[in-house]
Amino acid sequence: MRLEDTIAAVSTPAGRAGLGVVRISGREARRLAEAVLRFPRGGRWRSWHARTAELVDREGRPLDQVIVTFFEAPRSYTAEDVVEISCHGSPVVLAHCLERLCAAGARLAEPGEFTLRAFLNGRIDLPQAEAVRDLIEARTLYQARVAAQQASGSISRRIAPIKDQLLELVALLEAGIDFAEDDVEVAASEEILRRLDPIREALQRLAASFDYGRLVHSGITLAIVGKPNVGKSSLFNRLLEQDRAIVTDIPGTTRDLVSEVASLEGIPVKFVDTAGVRASGDPVEMLGIERTFRAMADADLTLVVVDLSRPLDEQDCHLIERAQRQGRFLVVGNKADLERRAAPPWNHVAVSALTGEGIDTLRRRALEAVTPPGGLEHEAGFLTSIRHRQCLEEALNALENARRAVEADLPHEMLLVDLYSALNPIDALTGATTADDILNRIFSSFCIGK
Amino acid sequence: MRLEDTIAAVSTPAGRAGLGVVRISGREARRLAEAVLRFPRGGRWRSWHARTAELVDREGRPLDQVIVTFFEAPRSYTAEDVVEISCHGSPVVLAHCLERLCAAGARLAEPGEFTLRAFLNGRIDLPQAEAVRDLIEARTLYQARVAAQQASGSISRRIAPIKDQLLELVALLEAGIDFAEDDVEVAASEEILRRLDPIREALQRLAASFDYGRLVHSGITLAIVGKPNVGKSSLFNRLLEQDRAIVTDIPGTTRDLVSEVASLEGIPVKFVDTAGVRASGDPVEMLGIERTFRAMADADLTLVVVDLSRPLDEQDCHLIERAQRQGRFLVVGNKADLERRAAPPWNHVAVSALTGEGIDTLRRRALEAVTPPGGLEHEAGFLTSIRHRQCLEEALNALENARRAVEADLPHEMLLVDLYSALNPIDALTGATTADDILNRIFSSFCIGK
Repeated sequence: MRLEDTIAAVSTPAGRAGLGVVRISGREARRLAEAVLRFPRGGRWRSWHARTAELVDREGRPLDQVIVTFFEAPRSYTAEDVVEISCHGSPVVLAHCLERLCAAGARLAEPGEFTLRAFLNGRIDLPQAEAVRDLIEARTLYQARVAAQQASGSISRRIAPIKDQLLELVALLEAGIDFAEDDVEVAASEEILRRLDPIREALQRLAASFDYGRLVHSGITLAIVGKPNVGKSSLFNRLLEQDRAIVTDIPGTTRDLVSEVASLEGIPVKFVDTAGVRASGDPVEMLGIERTFRAMADADLTLVVVDLSRPLDEQDCHLIERAQRQGRFLVVGNKADLERRAAPPWNHVAVSALTGEGIDTLRRRALEAVTPPGGLEHEAGFLTSIRHRQCLEEALNALENARRAVEADLPHEMLLVDLYSALNPIDALTGATTADDILNRIFSSFCIGK
Repeated sequence: MRLEDTIAAVSTPAGRAGLGVVRISGREARRLAEAVLRFPRGGRWRSWHARTAELVDREGRPLDQVIVTFFEAPRSYTAEDVVEISCHGSPVVLAHCLERLCAAGARLAEPGEFTLRAFLNGRIDLPQAEAVRDLIEARTLYQARVAAQQASGSISRRIAPIKDQLLELVALLEAGIDFAEDDVEVAASEEILRRLDPIREALQRLAASFDYGRLVHSGITLAIVGKPNVGKSSLFNRLLEQDRAIVTDIPGTTRDLVSEVASLEGIPVKFVDTAGVRASGDPVEMLGIERTFRAMADADLTLVVVDLSRPLDEQDCHLIERAQRQGRFLVVGNKADLERRAAPPWNHVAVSALTGEGIDTLRRRALEAVTPPGGLEHEAGFLTSIRHRQCLEEALNALENARRAVEADLPHEMLLVDLYSALNPIDALTGATTADDILNRIFSSFCIGK
């Protein structure tokens, strides 16, 4: 965490393009930029101003016409002096620019180091920094929007009032201890519990929001199972809106798992097409069926497909029972375009993979089945990071201990130890106090130049 | 060439990174930017100023914190109003930004269209536009520097005085024709030739500079040939400074051509290692030897490697004779670290692939062998584009016709036709007059966003 260094990196992706940007941050940013640039039109450094310059090589020969923008501390991304050199997107030119900056005294930025500095300099908190990474990594617009809200500080805004309540309780107890000898009345157990319980509940609600946040962040897996020839691959293709799986009339066409990721309402969904399940002597087919069962066990949701144009049989029932044992599932009645011969006794979604009928309903129902009620409406305030969830669980454990201490009428000094144990992970979450090794772990997952 | 459209594109390479820039150019640039951005801090459009904004989605929900820079016409890359939106380098965010700009009325920019506009709006000439592409495509720093000089207008600066001389001659002859009836003295043949010849010579010199410019632009191919076991692959690895080719003591280890590109003084050189040449019954080895001969024929320079630690034999001599017949070559005496048993009768460079002795000399001599005298010193003023060379050749042909017309005492009207025929390709070169299909061909080789 050497904040005294001035760091530099190419902040745009690798490759040839119209533009490539070299970013410099630190006390020496202007001096280093001047070492590699020439300003034929003169001008001076003015914050939030762009001007033209020539990038020159070691011998002072021009290498590129660039545009330089200066952001004076503290009004910059890192809250330090920042210079951005916008070159043509030529890898040779960008590499040379960086090399010369380093020769002049810059250090190559580590992954995420610009954002780390924004955090260390107090411009953003830790969840905001993590959200910047999530924004860059977003695979769907919905993920990007959630990350953008977290980048604006939504997590800390939700945690701050809870922490305040906890601090108030601590202050109350500390006061009781300090003045205990003077016979000041210490807080009664009921009063402590009256204050402790809402804190626990708020943290529990936030921790529970991770169930939905995890879906948004990591996406869900959805297995499509059923007997041979009920139309699993057709349904798979229809859900993906592309011809991904091979579809034939021959039962047992799909043998290995076929999977593809698409976005459902902005949540990345991995659809898995599986081998049809039936009693079979074919060893390859049996291996495929084994994988089908494994896919069901791994999935967040299983779609059990039945053929509405034929009477249901034992195989269908067995599969549904298995799905029921293993977790969330939906029964899908396919071939709704044909004459119906089956009336499934289970709640089911009737669709036609052939005509597309019912597919939108199926998509909505599938999403509802895996998301907590109201989940899709909330766009902020839920946790998407397992690190945050772990911090909250640590805090909740400590508060549980605190509650037991109150109930056991233990001295308030003991209770305070628990409350401080609850404050620590909350501060670690927001970055108020975070160990260096945790910071290193977080920022090493960033790209260089961010 | 619809200049009335406002165009937009992502100008940074595809991929995830710290930054990604969307560029908008045209009359509506500001209005379109306002359609996708929100400015919580207010502020107004000031040219060459950056300010913060929120990129919002269709429903007005924030998607990213961005920095927006405005360049007012005509002081911008395209000489039109330009807005650059610097987002986080998230493909989802950039794609959405572009999509929304298009929904608001922007058109997706064609490849090279920003640079095309800079040209059509008269800010740069055609060779400068082409140099921008070459700069982005540069594989070595030297190529980048040459392109940067051409981007600053070095080609046209060299052509302009030649064109002026040609125009003067045209004016002289036009005057003669216009006033012929008034008995104004028309230019004498000697006078015309006295003016014509320097023009032809200057154009010839410029056209000839392509011999060197082609090397800089496209690089050279260098074949390494010799008998088996003289150390070709070791030399190949040594020249590349890496262990690229498999080296053993077994004669005939290299069978197929092995090639790799490295940079010699900034010129990209494709080194080709070949199968050792000897009388052999092995059909695979014979195929390899056939390829060796083909590689010699294709190469700009052949290095014939002989083993200085053994007496030379007929095979060595045959190879050198073949190299001599086929073009430029250099004899390289390898294994100079061992006791010398050979004294090649040809001028040769003694090296040791094992110790590295003489390798720098070999690199220099190889480059000298393929570059025109003084070539490496000139950094500008030479042609690197085959299109430019073709234009000059057209002009030279026309001037040759003009010279013949003078010598044949043809009427000056005929002569003027030739002179105009010479002016046309010169104007086509600089872009003063260039057919649309040529422009389309040139700019379609650009990347999108440039």
